[in-house]
Amino acid sequence: MIGGGQGAFIGAVHRIAAQLDNEYELVCGAFSSNPEKSKASGEVLGLSPERVYASYQELFEKEKQLPENERVQVISIVTPNHVHFEPSKLALESGFHVILDKPMTFSLEEALELREVVERTGNLFCLTHTYTGYPMVKEARQFVASGKLGNVRKVYVEYPQGWLSTFEEGGDNKQASWRTDPKQSGIAGAMGDIGTHAFNLAEYVSGLAVTKINADINVVVEGRRLDDDGAALLKFENGASGVLFATQVAAGEENNVKIRVYGEKGGLEWQQEDANTLRVKWLDRPMEIYRTGGGYLSSFAQHNTRTPAGHPEGYLEAFANLYRNFALCVKARINGEEPQPEWQDYPGIRDGVRGMAFIENVIASGQSDQKWIDFTI
Amino acid sequence: MIGGGQGAFIGAVHRIAAQLDNEYELVCGAFSSNPEKSKASGEVLGLSPERVYASYQELFEKEKQLPENERVQVISIVTPNHVHFEPSKLALESGFHVILDKPMTFSLEEALELREVVERTGNLFCLTHTYTGYPMVKEARQFVASGKLGNVRKVYVEYPQGWLSTFEEGGDNKQASWRTDPKQSGIAGAMGDIGTHAFNLAEYVSGLAVTKINADINVVVEGRRLDDDGAALLKFENGASGVLFATQVAAGEENNVKIRVYGEKGGLEWQQEDANTLRVKWLDRPMEIYRTGGGYLSSFAQHNTRTPAGHPEGYLEAFANLYRNFALCVKARINGEEPQPEWQDYPGIRDGVRGMAFIENVIASGQSDQKWIDFTI
Amino acid sequence: MIGGGQGAFIGAVHRIAAQLDNEYELVCGAFSSNPEKSKASGEVLGLSPERVYASYQELFEKEKQLPENERVQVISIVTPNHVHFEPSKLALESGFHVILDKPMTFSLEEALELREVVERTGNLFCLTHTYTGYPMVKEARQFVASGKLGNVRKVYVEYPQGWLSTFEEGGDNKQASWRTDPKQSGIAGAMGDIGTHAFNLAEYVSGLAVTKINADINVVVEGRRLDDDGAALLKFENGASGVLFATQVAAGEENNVKIRVYGEKGGLEWQQEDANTLRVKWLDRPMEIYRTGGGYLSSFAQHNTRTPAGHPEGYLEAFANLYRNFALCVKARINGEEPQPEWQDYPGIRDGVRGMAFIENVIASGQSDQKWIDFTI
Amino acid sequence: MIGGGQGAFIGAVHRIAAQLDNEYELVCGAFSSNPEKSKASGEVLGLSPERVYASYQELFEKEKQLPENERVQVISIVTPNHVHFEPSKLALESGFHVILDKPMTFSLEEALELREVVERTGNLFCLTHTYTGYPMVKEARQFVASGKLGNVRKVYVEYPQGWLSTFEEGGDNKQASWRTDPKQSGIAGAMGDIGTHAFNLAEYVSGLAVTKINADINVVVEGRRLDDDGAALLKFENGASGVLFATQVAAGEENNVKIRVYGEKGGLEWQQEDANTLRVKWLDRPMEIYRTGGGYLSSFAQHNTRTPAGHPEGYLEAFANLYRNFALCVKARINGEEPQPEWQDYPGIRDGVRGMAFIENVIASGQSDQKWIDFTI
Repeated sequence: MIGGGQGAFIGAVHRIAAQLDNEYELVCGAFSSNPEKSKASGEVLGLSPERVYASYQELFEKEKQLPENERVQVISIVTPNHVHFEPSKLALESGFHVILDKPMTFSLEEALELREVVERTGNLFCLTHTYTGYPMVKEARQFVASGKLGNVRKVYVEYPQGWLSTFEEGGDNKQASWRTDPKQSGIAGAMGDIGTHAFNLAEYVSGLAVTKINADINVVVEGRRLDDDGAALLKFENGASGVLFATQVAAGEENNVKIRVYGEKGGLEWQQEDANTLRVKWLDRPMEIYRTGGGYLSSFAQHNTRTPAGHPEGYLEAFANLYRNFALCVKARINGEEPQPEWQDYPGIRDGVRGMAFIENVIASGQSDQKWIDFTI
Repeated sequence: MIGGGQGAFIGAVHRIAAQLDNEYELVCGAFSSNPEKSKASGEVLGLSPERVYASYQELFEKEKQLPENERVQVISIVTPNHVHFEPSKLALESGFHVILDKPMTFSLEEALELREVVERTGNLFCLTHTYTGYPMVKEARQFVASGKLGNVRKVYVEYPQGWLSTFEEGGDNKQASWRTDPKQSGIAGAMGDIGTHAFNLAEYVSGLAVTKINADINVVVEGRRLDDDGAALLKFENGASGVLFATQVAAGEENNVKIRVYGEKGGLEWQQEDANTLRVKWLDRPMEIYRTGGGYLSSFAQHNTRTPAGHPEGYLEAFANLYRNFALCVKARINGEEPQPEWQDYPGIRDGVRGMAFIENVIASGQSDQKWIDFTI
Repeated sequence: MIGGGQGAFIGAVHRIAAQLDNEYELVCGAFSSNPEKSKASGEVLGLSPERVYASYQELFEKEKQLPENERVQVISIVTPNHVHFEPSKLALESGFHVILDKPMTFSLEEALELREVVERTGNLFCLTHTYTGYPMVKEARQFVASGKLGNVRKVYVEYPQGWLSTFEEGGDNKQASWRTDPKQSGIAGAMGDIGTHAFNLAEYVSGLAVTKINADINVVVEGRRLDDDGAALLKFENGASGVLFATQVAAGEENNVKIRVYGEKGGLEWQQEDANTLRVKWLDRPMEIYRTGGGYLSSFAQHNTRTPAGHPEGYLEAFANLYRNFALCVKARINGEEPQPEWQDYPGIRDGVRGMAFIENVIASGQSDQKWIDFTI
Repeated sequence: MIGGGQGAFIGAVHRIAAQLDNEYELVCGAFSSNPEKSKASGEVLGLSPERVYASYQELFEKEKQLPENERVQVISIVTPNHVHFEPSKLALESGFHVILDKPMTFSLEEALELREVVERTGNLFCLTHTYTGYPMVKEARQFVASGKLGNVRKVYVEYPQGWLSTFEEGGDNKQASWRTDPKQSGIAGAMGDIGTHAFNLAEYVSGLAVTKINADINVVVEGRRLDDDGAALLKFENGASGVLFATQVAAGEENNVKIRVYGEKGGLEWQQEDANTLRVKWLDRPMEIYRTGGGYLSSFAQHNTRTPAGHPEGYLEAFANLYRNFALCVKARINGEEPQPEWQDYPGIRDGVRGMAFIENVIASGQSDQKWIDFTI
């Protein structure tokens, strides 16, 4: 693991996600750019001191010299955005498979270069867009893909949070500080942090690519250096249209991501606060409530569920689904087997490139007087 | 009553709303442009045949000649949009108070002229934007006005319906036919029919006027002559921003109007499908659930409620609240008394003018390459 | 109307319910046992002074002497429980049809005598068990009757309120005072006031009669003279079992009546706080959400709905459904026509007798050391 | 680990719960009474073959001979009910701490004996009543204990499932077979499997002991050998009363455990299907919605949460909370430190004894003609 030392929220989440299904063992790490902190974190995590490294460069260098059956196989990178590209590139080029936190890189340029590295090395790559790990989000995608709703006409996706409603920067709130700092986060704040999740969810569930965007991007809290709010009108490749909004100043909201997709014959709705439910609405018959664990669900939903119906699974399980599917694909690679389609359904380099393109396009649209801009990569 | 003959949905709703609190008696009508149909409708409704008229012109002419204590006092106009302006003008000029269905007129030009008539005659005028009649919508407005949420920053309003997901025009579905016919509805379909409700709700609850608009207006169903879908990014007078969408092709949705307003300290949420609940969210304490009938509610909510907490009131009661408040103001006028603020809280000519301006501005924006257009009247 | 003078909650509800569909006109009344108050109430309601009577005896006496096309046809009786039997009996014997508030009488003995009067006179009789007037409750009954759920196995019905959580008697709260007074309410408090509703709902929806009862009846608030809380285990005629509870000391609850019925293949759930929704659960497929106004509903639900799907109807509309159906049956009677099954689906003398038997049985069980007592009439 | 070989539902849940917070490492096991199966399961789980044992007796024997820093510290026992007592007793007497699946034993007699063993050996003991591991259930308990609701008056607890609606015994459904077999489950079916959870939840949240019980216990599905349904009226030590029901024949229900507790000033409600929400209702002010992760929550709720507000935690996290708290207490014991109150808040031997007493009392009451029986141990 690169990054994720003591006090980092997402590092702990990655570790739980990795452990949950017993598919991974944490064997080495470079947990902080400060070697002392890295060492201390490694100790707390119970690692052998000789495999806690002072830098990611050292980690790759030393690990690749270990015998094949001892050395680390998968590298998790959970650093802030500006330290995504270099370690990912180096890890892939050192022969490791990579799991990387989103957004993928600091800029679209880096993203395109990383895509080249992934293609060149042939190593496996996963980007942790958590929300697509939920079984009912997978069901939603399968449902749309099945054609039961007819052609998609409308996509509404929203992601309201409230935790940046006041100026939190520079104080104890480390999360607030780095996520609003252009040097660490890049050109976008809310759009990069949560807008990319909303965008990814919209494309994942609808199965459609966004082609045009018309955005309003705002800095609501005085003194903030990056956007904390935004909304965009969207056009999709098949002519469908949509609305996306993401905000971190909806005071009182927690983390209320929601998507609705409507086709000619019906629609569906999923909301993270009721994550084990997928609402399917029909033009001329009663709404149906699909639930995690139901025997009637697709193999994709079933594969990503651990407990029987009525035992709620949540965010950590969704995160763990990414890790587990990636592990199954890594093992299949090692064993020279063909991975099942359900295993391969984790976000990868394509999602990462499109996510970074979303950031660049949505910010460009926000700054532009032009109504619609083409979604370009 | 003008219009609202047999088979008309909204005419029946107006009659129930008027009767519910025993403040009105239906005494005369011109229920159809076809005199036979008008007569038949009047008979079903139990009116004296001599007060069922062949035309609204005849109605006003004859009624104003009756002795003051016999003649009709309030005229309800429930015709399609293209027959709003003329009867309203004539009614007001004939000395009657007027309740008119929305949208107010066929065009903004007519709306401005009607405003002049209202001001000149001094007669009372109500426009039936039903959703502002719900007690919890009134509570929401009072809540924002109280400053408890701090300055408003975000307004999200949405109105998805699904009933026009297929091409219904020209068949038995009379509602579908006139609402999609430019000769009867004007320049807008969904935007006029339900977009105006969403817009009115946004301005009513936030207490803020929209100043800029950036819209995407669509005709989704092939062959349709007016918009059946649209979304708009909004700017408000205080710098707040918002998103509005209204669609009639969200297959499987009924009539799911919803509004969310966020200020610096918290937010609130109201949804017609759970009309007796107002959700109030706070930055740093538990969400509160305000409920119709609660003793802690504002005088505006309490005045507009008939039953104790836990006895749900719905759409007809909300509609009846408009009628009742208008009646109370008419009676105060007749008795030379000052109406209470709670009574005066019904939508009027200002709402009507702004609603027609919304239609013209949103359609103009939809057709324009300019990103933001000023909201002009 | 007998009773329901100024300040009476349920009298106002009855008047709105009667007026809502324009099927009734209030023509006369004896609104209070105090002639002055009766006169004052009649004036407020706009009645001719000569048809506001000092007593119900006078009302029946005078009205039956009026010409047939002038005199009142239906008598609404909305007095406290101890003044239900006498005016009902006299009204029926004077040739009027009767609508009576529940519980039907002061005692089971009176109930049985009233049944004899109804049978003897042949006049129509309606008891206002409001909750069976909701369209989705009617749908629930039809659903069970259709056999789609298989044989009924379990019935859970509950009715928590919180308004009697403190000692309210003897003060301004007139409702609290008479409902806890054995001289006005009879042998039961909560069991008579709301337990009877729960019981009626259970038998109505399941289509099954209760045969055995095992109850725990409590007086929770110190000083109260009648039960304010109770629960009962139930057995039904087909061998199904159930649980009923009703309480007025569930602090914080409004009027949260709810029923669940499970058969061999699925179950259904209805809750007044979300009155337009019927949840239908299946053993092996997704839950379905039936909604008022849906085109797929039974004729019973459709007949009892006024507005399209998505326009919530509530308590007053449910109440009005009882009035409307009764009016349709009265008109059919007058016209010598056969009423439709949907019109006849209003609670009548059988429900009243069983409701009074429930009160006597549940209170007897509460006082008994015997575990199960037979439900006897 | 004892039991929990391949195909066992609850064994896998225990392993995930143990691993989730990295507090446990699975080092040895006797996974099946069949040595071959045990070996196979151990291999799949990646254990050293020499620490996969043919029987639990062998496991304890061999492990206790290992050096202290190598041998297993905590034994998880996840066998069917009839194999709970012996291995627990032996494990405790061999010097190990024990985590045991519920219900604790096969009979109350065994439970009392096990209590003696726990007290005598002084080793730590945890019984996995999962539902008390949810942060919002802990909040509920703290809320009641704080006195904010006043004295408790009513407790309603329910646990409907539908998975035994048909006769599943004897086929592929291993869960159904052993849970309905008196030789493996003891004298109770549904009452032991889920009734004990409901009972435990009621006592845990209310902080009150049940003193009297009046139950109706049923076998609904023909041919079944143990109860699959039941309901009980309850009395608590402070005079409060309650209703408990648990059923496995509520066709269409998943695992819908719910509790409501009402005091003099308000009430609270928690339902597993919306596990991160605690609804707090007040007599005279708006209901409040407490949510996992809220900064306003008690230290007990906060300690048992891993992710920020809005990232749902579920059943596995609740289960893991039991394991984590137990680990913290075991570590404190080893380090000679005083465990924090939050760590000690896991179900133990007292809960187990009361749970077994519940089973004996509720079944006895179901078979008795006596109305109320004293809750005896």
